[in-house]
Formats: sequence, C-alpha cells, structure tokens
Amino acid sequence: MGHTAINFREKFSKFDGYWSPRVVAEMNDYQFKLAKVQGEFTWHAHPDTDEVFIIIEGSLDIEFRDGKVRLEAGEMFVVPKGVEHKPVAENECRIMLVEPKGTVNTGESSNALTAQNDVWV
Amino acid sequence: MGHTAINFREKFSKFDGYWSPRVVAEMNDYQFKLAKVQGEFTWHAHPDTDEVFIIIEGSLDIEFRDGKVRLEAGEMFVVPKGVEHKPVAENECRIMLVEPKGTVNTGESSNALTAQNDVWV
Repeated sequence: MGHTAINFREKFSKFDGYWSPRVVAEMNDYQFKLAKVQGEFTWHAHPDTDEVFIIIEGSLDIEFRDGKVRLEAGEMFVVPKGVEHKPVAENECRIMLVEPKGTVNTGESSNALTAQNDVWV
Repeated sequence: MGHTAINFREKFSKFDGYWSPRVVAEMNDYQFKLAKVQGEFTWHAHPDTDEVFIIIEGSLDIEFRDGKVRLEAGEMFVVPKGVEHKPVAENECRIMLVEPKGTVNTGESSNALTAQNDVWV
C-alpha cells in the first residue's frame, strides 16, 4: 500500500526552467534531483562532495580545466569533489543529479544561476 | 583528459548472471551498481540504509509485506531502511542500485543468492 514508483517522464512534465533542479527522492542523507538544462552553466566546484550526473534524455558536455566529457542518454559521470566543472548543453537535456542534501547547484560560486535548494516535484 | 562516460549498455554487455551486482561508479561512500535480474529474489532488509532501485530496461516488481510496487524503465524507487522487500522480475530486467559501499545484496539474510560484494565491471 502506498508504494509508488517515481516516473522520470511524469516528473519532468511538471516543471519548466533550466538549471533549476527538483528533488524527486531521498535516500539517507542524499537527494536525487531532476533538471532540464540548456546552454552554458557556470564554472564551479563542490568542495565537500562528489557529484553524480545521469543523462536521461539528450546530451551534455561537462567541461573541465583539463578537458571535457560528452555524456549521452544512458550514461553517467561522477565529478570528484573539488574539481571545477562547467556543464554545457547545446540542446535541451534532461538529467538526474545525485548529491548530499544541501548541495547548492553552483557550488561555491553564488550567482544568477544559483537555484533555490530542496525544491521537490 | 581521462574523463570517460560510464555507458550502461556497454557495462551490461560485459557480464552475465542474475542478482549479482557490478559496481560502475563511486561517489563519496556510495556505490552505483548495475545488475541483471530475473525470477524471484529473497526476502530481506537492509537495517542500516535505504536502497535505491532505478530501472534501466524491463520491469521489476518489489514486493513488501503490505503490498508491492511495479517499476518500469525510466522509474525509480527508494526502499526505506529496515523494510523487508523481495524483488521479482518475470522477464530479464536491468537495474541500477545505489547504496553505501559495503551493502550486501541479501541484507541480513545470507543465502545462496548472496553475491560477492564490491565487484566492478
């Protein structure tokens, strides 16, 4: 009773706006967040945690100071803690992020792209 | 340089056997594991941690003492810590598990289905 699947497509249909992650699940002290992204994000790092990117739909580049990785749907990547990175999506891309509760999307760099944290969908 | 995507399809092509999770990534103290599953698993619980199931391909039922949830590709579910559950897949299903490093697949129930832990692919 009351056991309900979390459906990514349904969740994505319920919000708009880029670079504004929505929480869909918590496990222990971690959150699973969905985000629609397009264009260039800001350079930032998360000094205290690794960050997981899972691509649900589309493709995403993550740029590093020493190279980049291209991620397609059905792929994931772990950005190690403290490593500067800049996500870039030429076209709309739908991703899932996994990170500790309280992690801010722009890391140490507070700017116009800093999203409100802990918003559920 | 050296930034490489983790591709689920490629990883799944590299191992066989059901109910035997393979680690594909670590973030902090957590592991992301891929598993092929088919048939009935054993009733078990993880007393110290929640457990995340993400369905990559196929469908999976998770039975609980008070009901069940059916999960399809593109869906996820968090089994709360301490809650007895039994995964069942009528046909082959490909899943990703997220759980703390060291989590044993059969929880407190050691039996023939208990898989070697921390095996990477």
